[in-house]
This record gives sequence, structure tokens and C-alpha cells, in this order.
Amino acid sequence: MDDRTALWNDLAAQIAVDSIRATTAANSGHPTSSMSCAHLLAVLFADHLRTDVKDPKAPANDRFVLSKGHAAPALYAALKAIGALDDEQLLSLRSFGSPVEGHPAPLEAMPSVDVATGSLGQGLAIGVGLAMGMRMDGAPGTAWVVLGDSEMAEGSVWEAMEAASFHGVANLVAILDLNRLGQRGPTMHGWDADVFVRRAEAFGWNAIALDGHDVTAIDAAYRQARTSGRPTMIVARTQKGHGVSFLADEGGWHGKPVPKDREDEAIRELGGVRDIRITPPSPEGFTPPEPADPRGEEAPAYADAIATRKAFGEALAWLVGERADVVVLDGEVGNSTYTEDAQKVAPDRFVQLYIAEQCMTGVASGLQAYRKVPFAATFGAFWTRAYDQIRMGAISRANLRLCGSHAGVSIGEDGPSQMAVEDLAAFRAINGTTVLYPADGNCTVALTRAMADLDGISYLRTTREATPPLYAADEAFPVGGSKRVADGDDVTLIGAGVTLHQCLEARDALATDGITARVLDCYSVKPIDAQAVRDALDETGAIVVAEDHRVEGGLGDAVLDALAATGALGGRVRKLGVREIPGSGTAAELRRWAGIDAEAIATAARDVVRAG
Amino acid sequence: MDDRTALWNDLAAQIAVDSIRATTAANSGHPTSSMSCAHLLAVLFADHLRTDVKDPKAPANDRFVLSKGHAAPALYAALKAIGALDDEQLLSLRSFGSPVEGHPAPLEAMPSVDVATGSLGQGLAIGVGLAMGMRMDGAPGTAWVVLGDSEMAEGSVWEAMEAASFHGVANLVAILDLNRLGQRGPTMHGWDADVFVRRAEAFGWNAIALDGHDVTAIDAAYRQARTSGRPTMIVARTQKGHGVSFLADEGGWHGKPVPKDREDEAIRELGGVRDIRITPPSPEGFTPPEPADPRGEEAPAYADAIATRKAFGEALAWLVGERADVVVLDGEVGNSTYTEDAQKVAPDRFVQLYIAEQCMTGVASGLQAYRKVPFAATFGAFWTRAYDQIRMGAISRANLRLCGSHAGVSIGEDGPSQMAVEDLAAFRAINGTTVLYPADGNCTVALTRAMADLDGISYLRTTREATPPLYAADEAFPVGGSKRVADGDDVTLIGAGVTLHQCLEARDALATDGITARVLDCYSVKPIDAQAVRDALDETGAIVVAEDHRVEGGLGDAVLDALAATGALGGRVRKLGVREIPGSGTAAELRRWAGIDAEAIATAARDVVRAG
Repeated sequence: MDDRTALWNDLAAQIAVDSIRATTAANSGHPTSSMSCAHLLAVLFADHLRTDVKDPKAPANDRFVLSKGHAAPALYAALKAIGALDDEQLLSLRSFGSPVEGHPAPLEAMPSVDVATGSLGQGLAIGVGLAMGMRMDGAPGTAWVVLGDSEMAEGSVWEAMEAASFHGVANLVAILDLNRLGQRGPTMHGWDADVFVRRAEAFGWNAIALDGHDVTAIDAAYRQARTSGRPTMIVARTQKGHGVSFLADEGGWHGKPVPKDREDEAIRELGGVRDIRITPPSPEGFTPPEPADPRGEEAPAYADAIATRKAFGEALAWLVGERADVVVLDGEVGNSTYTEDAQKVAPDRFVQLYIAEQCMTGVASGLQAYRKVPFAATFGAFWTRAYDQIRMGAISRANLRLCGSHAGVSIGEDGPSQMAVEDLAAFRAINGTTVLYPADGNCTVALTRAMADLDGISYLRTTREATPPLYAADEAFPVGGSKRVADGDDVTLIGAGVTLHQCLEARDALATDGITARVLDCYSVKPIDAQAVRDALDETGAIVVAEDHRVEGGLGDAVLDALAATGALGGRVRKLGVREIPGSGTAAELRRWAGIDAEAIATAARDVVRAG
Repeated sequence: MDDRTALWNDLAAQIAVDSIRATTAANSGHPTSSMSCAHLLAVLFADHLRTDVKDPKAPANDRFVLSKGHAAPALYAALKAIGALDDEQLLSLRSFGSPVEGHPAPLEAMPSVDVATGSLGQGLAIGVGLAMGMRMDGAPGTAWVVLGDSEMAEGSVWEAMEAASFHGVANLVAILDLNRLGQRGPTMHGWDADVFVRRAEAFGWNAIALDGHDVTAIDAAYRQARTSGRPTMIVARTQKGHGVSFLADEGGWHGKPVPKDREDEAIRELGGVRDIRITPPSPEGFTPPEPADPRGEEAPAYADAIATRKAFGEALAWLVGERADVVVLDGEVGNSTYTEDAQKVAPDRFVQLYIAEQCMTGVASGLQAYRKVPFAATFGAFWTRAYDQIRMGAISRANLRLCGSHAGVSIGEDGPSQMAVEDLAAFRAINGTTVLYPADGNCTVALTRAMADLDGISYLRTTREATPPLYAADEAFPVGGSKRVADGDDVTLIGAGVTLHQCLEARDALATDGITARVLDCYSVKPIDAQAVRDALDETGAIVVAEDHRVEGGLGDAVLDALAATGALGGRVRKLGVREIPGSGTAAELRRWAGIDAEAIATAARDVVRAG
């Protein structure tokens, strides 16, 4: 055994020991799932993960994603070994206020972690995004992703497998920790590494099977992986709880710390507590390219009717010409969302991910963790497919710009499967989101521009059909604002997107009854303009809010919340929205059916005025 | 060419012609994607799909799922050929009020359709569920699923591939319509059928590649598929728009009808309008087994503290003993959700789907379409992974019983990736859902029992930690009801699940200030007990509502909506909920951090009372 082999084995034992120490101190967590990947991490962090420990975000660095996030103790132990954490921090695992959380999260005090993991099956797509970002910049780095065997049942993993090989993402290495035991018993394929080798190869990957506790084999595989010219999956047969006789390959230990009274015994079997410090290999010298100069063109401006989805596409096409960091992702609907306009301007910063919304979201999270400003678009309805990835994106503190087209029943004939009627509720409920819903072309351009600089997850909801212009091209649309598009004393009509136009039409109908209506454009659904909503109730005494979205969780609930939050409950509020499953029909038929068209709004407004 | 071959080809031409006629009449829809699978459907409906046209739900029947739902015109044309639709209905495609929707939906007037499709990648898991349901009953049927090539990028397809082979679902045939052209251009793999053969084989399937317009080859493959003893994928190379020179394999025709002025030309190329009527093969004689007698045991009852997740598991274990139609699905967390209790009672009606929530939901939709009453459980946070399948389940009018455990920040140390804090918002926004959130063991038992008989999608939210008993075992908990668990005059505290207990504690603290509080248990979050909420505001003048869930879209918004809906806005409402991303910590620390613990509730209550 040469010196390096001895070091790797010692370091692996230290990672196992520290995983036990941290979880026993926390009295919860996953020591055995950490121990199965201890050798894989030891060799990686000691000799392959090229990173500047003092500057974990340096553009030349490799990046590491622990997709099996519950093995966080192993990662923290590896970070301790490279000097990114100290022992006291390690032992604060899972304590309130500690950045050493139960699953990794990219907190300010945890700069070596790029994204949150813990919802299984999400890390590989993020790795694809990191690797693509590096490649776009010509950076020398590799993205390394450690996966668990249970998460291979998640389809999201196979979306990422497909995307990586299709796009030839050679600077990506997946390390599959095949420890045979899931949360409640054996996995489907146990130690049958060949199953995964065959699948990986069928998905266009290079694949290597090995003993995941054989450091020499691991080292050789890592070397081969980096030079194979293809994405590589290393399928490593391992033991959960490896190195401790009463834990190794034993059932019943998932997610359980070693009891305090057996901790010494376990640590003794691993050779005791060590304090090995290592320095990972240095990244190659690399300076990111100078960003291309902005083309300096005028942003699109509209004097005529246009679909907001088309205005989004044109605004994005303009934006990619102005900003070299913007990347555009499509889920094979670029001719519907109009991201194809941006593809024409910057094909090298356009990524076609086909119909794989989970992968698209993961790739976006990876790209934004590597210096990029990703925009991704699909039908609003199909963002529901990636809701867990969006949820995790928020926990990743990721800056994602998402656009959902074809909102609401107004899409017409295609029917309910294509209609986004839950998207506002879903996005509103995610932490730190901005939810935007423009009603005309110029507003769409302004909001698309604003999204490029927004933190967190921003969501732009666009409409299939053309809507007439309401605003001048130089109008400002601050996030959290609203627009009073018509004045009136007796009632306020609140709409956004397509229903704003319905409100304006309703206002005309009301005028013939001698009722004057204020009309408010809540283009910023979250944050909502609470002051404007409260003023509307104070000054007009009644509100009708109409949205092309389920009645739960969307604009109507945002309005009620604004009233509750500002203590202004003291008027009459009525919500209109979709309350049943839509069928097929024209947009007008379906709006009527749903009770959100001009006639229904006018009827509701008469009703609340008379009740006042 | 023998007679049968001629018939199949003629029938295929009729399906193509009728697809053109219907979409041209509708002036929208997908004729070319219908034409690519015309021969595949012709041979299937004429000679392989054993079904009683007059009784499409007969237990002996085969079942058919059109996963590529946009090819609905081809399905409707096939249904016309077997006499399940007439020509007038066919030509009502996409009209308002017609059951012949843009994508298939299982409406009352469309009994041959079992589930809604149109969000790609979902049909195969549903087919797995149908096939499993048949197998559980010993029925002779086969589930046939037609897939498009673009949807093979969706990970959900690969989850179903894995589940089908792992569970040896031999009565399942997937027919992949490899027409090379997606919505916006070529697919990833074009006509490379071998790619999909290799992948299918690597996932444990039998696979056959063929020319999808060669009816003899199709017939032979269908025969082989049924006797292979394994799930079989038929990879059929086809042409989009086959049979019409200006459509066949041409780009730019996705989702576009043939213009009126070219309709005749297209139909002429296909040999003109036909009116072939066929009778599909009859199903084998089969009588479903008599359901096993109920065991006649007493439902669980609790006098001590118990976690509602455990009470759910015990109630479900009892239920599977009483009802032979109940099937339980697990996403490899059965020892956390306690579905493992049911597995012990009825292992033959327990399906382990591993960590594949999308597949689990699809299988549940398939099972309920075949005489079963499925319950499925995972962590509440991970239902976000299947949100699109749940959305489509509602459009399928599916009766799904879903349980989400580990709700809210109260799970403690595992951190935000494992915490369900958006689930109430997500489920509330889905059409026709029932959202339930019990606070003690006996309420959990009652609600679990109720779910078995509920239509639509019902969601039960359970808590990780034990909560003390509040109710007697014989207490009734009607859906849409609430419980006044304490009386008081000055304010009403509304909670559900874990926060109800916090409200009770807050009430004690308020009493020392001379403030008396009513406490309301809104165990039925949707529908909410609007009358009780309004009475609370009327009678006590102020409400504090606390939930262990994001402040958007959950219980608080349900309460505001109840007030708005009943016209009772005239008091002061304050909402408490999670407003930031939680970190790790104990349950108590995190409730305090989120401002939803007893102290925070008491503080808010003092505040609103003083403001009154």
C-alpha cells in the first residue's frame, strides 16, 4: 500500500468517524448513508476535486453536488478535512441557527455548497447545469455528483442522463453509491451494478463499475472519467455503515445515529478520531472571458395588440443581445412560448431540454450557481411538473426566471390538460417568489427586463391570445406596484393579464347603470400592492377581483390577504375565478362558463354595490 | 394481401381521414400526430383490444390509454369505427360542451376513456396501474398504452418502465409512435428505434422494433407482446402525416389542421371518406372474485397521545382488513408514513413503488379506473413531485386518497427539504379536492375512514410528532365541519393539526390577561366550515389563524375566503404562518422562529383585541 492509498483510506475512516460523531452529537441524521460514500469522497476531495478552498465560487473550480443530501455528514466531514469547516461547526450539525443543516443548503456561512439537496433525484440535473455553465465560459472544471441508489427510481435522474449525453456534457461525473439498502429495506437492484451500467450505456454514457471501498479503483475511475470525452457514471458497490461491524450492511440503521453508549466502540473499529487535513488539487489557471458588449439596441415597444407570450419572446431576444450572462432554456415548446426568438439571437446560450421540465429547472439551478442568469419557459400548466424542483430551488436560494405561457381557460380549444389554472397558487406559496402577470406588450417587456435583476424565483405568466395595448413603452412597472387604469367611485374592479381587459369592458357596462368603477391592474400578484388594494376598498367601498385561475390561492387570495394584512377589513369583497374543470370551447365561451367575463364581472359588481 | 391486411389498411386510412375531417372542422388540433399512429390503432382496435363496446368498464376488458393525448382525433376515429361514437360526435371535436375534447378526458359521455391525458409522459404509469388492478383480480385483460416519442424525454416514463418490470407486469404493452418530429422540429433520436429498444431492454422489458405502417408486422408484434411474459415495448417507426404527400414527414405541421381548401385533396390521397365498422375481439369470460369478507374488527381508538401519521397507518391497516377493494401504495417511506402497517395485513394489496412519486400517482389513477380504492402516502413535501399528475388526476375525475406526512416546520432537524409547507396551497388549488388535517388520533381514524368513500382527490395531512388526544373515539368529523374545542368571547383562535394544540396553549396564556378565547379546529381545510368561521368573527370580533404552512394559500387564506364568500368581512383577521425558509432545529425552536407557537399566537391575539 503506497502513501497515497494509506492517506485515502485514513481519510475515509476520518469521514466515517466524523459522520458518526456529528450525528451522535445531534442525536439524529444519517451516519450509515454517509459511511457508504466515505471512500468515494476521500479520494475525490484529496486528489480530484480541483477547488480553491478559500474561494469556492472561483470560476476555475470543479463543483460538487451531493444529490443524496441525507449523507450531508460525509460532506461536512470532507469539508472539515479541506479546512472549509472546523470541528466545532461539524458538531453543530442539525442545531438551530447552525449552517450545518440536516441536508446541505447553500447558506452564506456554507459557501462550499452550491445548491440545496434532500429531495432525492435532483442533483444530477443541477450537475448538468453547472457543467454546461462551465463549458459556455470555456472553464476547465468538472461537475461531480454523488447519487444514492434509491434515488435512481426517480425519473428526474433519467431526464438528466438523457440531457447530459444528448448535449455531450463530458465534464460531468456521476458517482452512484450503490449501498443496497434504502430507507425501509433493500433497494430494487441491490448490488447489481450491471443493471445501472447497462442503463447508463443505453442512455449514452460512459460507465464504470467498481468496489466503492477500493480507493485505488476509485482513483483510476476518476482519472478515466475525466478523459472519457463523455459524461461518466461510476457505479460503486458499497456497504451502508462500512467499517463498523454492527452497522455494515445491516438493516434497521437508516437515518439512525449511533447511540451515545456505542459511539466509542464504533469509532474504535474505524481506528479512532483523526485530524487529517488535506489540500484538494488546485484548479487550472483560468480567466473567464470578457462578456460580449451589449448590442445596444432599443428594447421592443408596442403600439398595437400583441400576445404577452410573444412580447416576452421578443423582450428576451433583446435581453440576450444586451447581456452575455443570460441563458435561455426551452422544454420543446419554444415556438409557443417564443423563446425561439432568443435562440435566433444567441444560439450558443440557448439550451433545448426537450419535454423534461424537471431537468430544465435543475439545469437552471445549476447554471445560476455558475455565473449565469437563466430564463426558462414552458406552458404554465407544465411548471406543475417541476414543482418540487422549484420548491427546492427556493431552498437553494436560486435566482430562477421562469415564464409560463398559455395561462388559464383563455387558451380555448386544447382543453384543461393544457390550461394553467393552479400556477399562481403554486408559485405564490413558494418562499421569496415574485409573481408577475402582465396585461399588455409594453408591461411584459418591462417585467421581463426587471426579472433579469431579481433575486429569488420570479415567475412571469403570459397569455396565448393577443391583448390590446394599455401602456406607453416608457411606463415604469415596479415590482410590488399596480396601475389604476380607470377611475371611479362606486366599486373597484381588480384584474391582471387577460381579466384586466374584461374589467375594462365591465366598467363600460356599469357606466350605463350609473355605476362608476375604478379598475386596478395588479400586474404584480406577489408582492401585491397592498396599499392600492386597501385604498380601493376605503375609497370605493367594494371590490370585485377576477382572475383566469382557480379561485383558491391566486390573485383573489392575494387581495384578501392584502386587506387582512393592512387591517382594512371593513368592506365587501367578492372573488371570481374558475370553480370547475373546464372543457373545450372558444376563449369567450370558456370565460363565460367560468364566470370571469365582462358580463359576470358586471353582474357581481352590481350585486356588491346594491348590498352596500 | 389477404382480407385482414386490406381491412387494417383501409381502417387506418379511415382513421387518418377522420382525424383530418375532425380537426379541419374544428380548425385546430393535431391531424398529423394522429395519422402517424393510424395503423397502430387500426390493428389494435380491429383484432387485439378485447373490449365490450357496450360495457367499456366491464372487468374482463382490455384497457387503452392514449398517453400522447394530442392524438385524440385518432382515438375518436377508432371509437367511431367500433361504434362507440357517431360521426356527428366526431365532428364536434373541440366544440364547447362536446365530450370530444381537444385531449381525451373520461367524461360521462365518453365512457371508453378511462383517464385524461395531454400532459405528456403520464400514460404509462396509468397503464401500470390498470394492469396491476386486473392482475389483482385475476382478470384476463391487457393494458395497451400508445406513447409519443417526444414524451420519452419525461422521466415519469422511465419511472413507469422500472415499476412495470420490477413488478413483472406482463399484461402491459407500450406502443411507441416514433414519428421523428416534435412540436418544434426533430426529436432527439429521430427514427433510431434501437436507442429505445436498448433502453427498454436495460429496464427489463421485452422490446420489438418495426415499421409502424406495416400492419402485418404490427399484428405479429401485438401477438408476441401478449405472450412474452414481460411488459413489452413496441417501437414503431412512423411518419407524421403519413399517407398525404404534403403532410408526410414534413416539418411545420405540428398541431395544425389541414386548411379547408386542401382537405379534399388530403382525403383523396387517402382514398376518400369511408365508413368501415368493426367489432373488436370479445374479452374472455371472466367474473371478478367475490370480495373477501370484512374482518369485522373494531377501528383503532386512542386515549393517549399518538402521532397522526401513526394513527393513519393503523386506521389504514384496519381499513384494508374491512374492504377488499382498498390498495395501498408506498414511495419507499412506509416506515415513516406507517403504510407498512397495512402491508402486514394485506401484502397482496400493497404496492411498493420506491422513490417515484409521479409513478405512484399514475398507478393510483390506473387502479381507481379499474375497480380499486387506492391510498398512497409519502412525505407531504414530496407530493410536490407529483403535482402535475395530481392536477391531471383531477381532470381524470380520479378518486385518489393521498396522505402527506411530516407536515410543516414541526418535523424539526431534517430541515427545509423535508418540510411540507406548500402542500395545503397546492392541494387547495386543485379542482374538487378535499383537504383534511387532523389534530389527534381519533380524528385521524375518522377522516381516513371517510376518505375511502370520498369522490375526487382527498388529501390527509399528518404530523410527525405525537399529539395529545382531544376527541372521543365515537366523535363524528364530517367533511366541511369544524370543532369548537374551547369557548371564549374576546377572540377566536383557529388552528389545525399541530397548531391547534398551540392555540389551546395560547388560550391558557390569554386567560391570565383576562382575555377569553374561542378555539376552533378546522380539520377540514377544504371545504372549510365557513359558517363556523363567520360566526367566530361575528361573535368574538377577531380571529387569529395559525398554520404550520406557508402564509400563502393554506388555512389562513381558506379562512379569509370563507369570510369573503359569506359577506362577513367586518372584523379584524390576522394570519400567522411561515414567512421565510426554515433551517434546522427542534420543533419548538422552529415554531418559535416561524411565529406560530403559543407565545406568538398569544401576542397576536392581544394585539388584535387591543386594536378592537
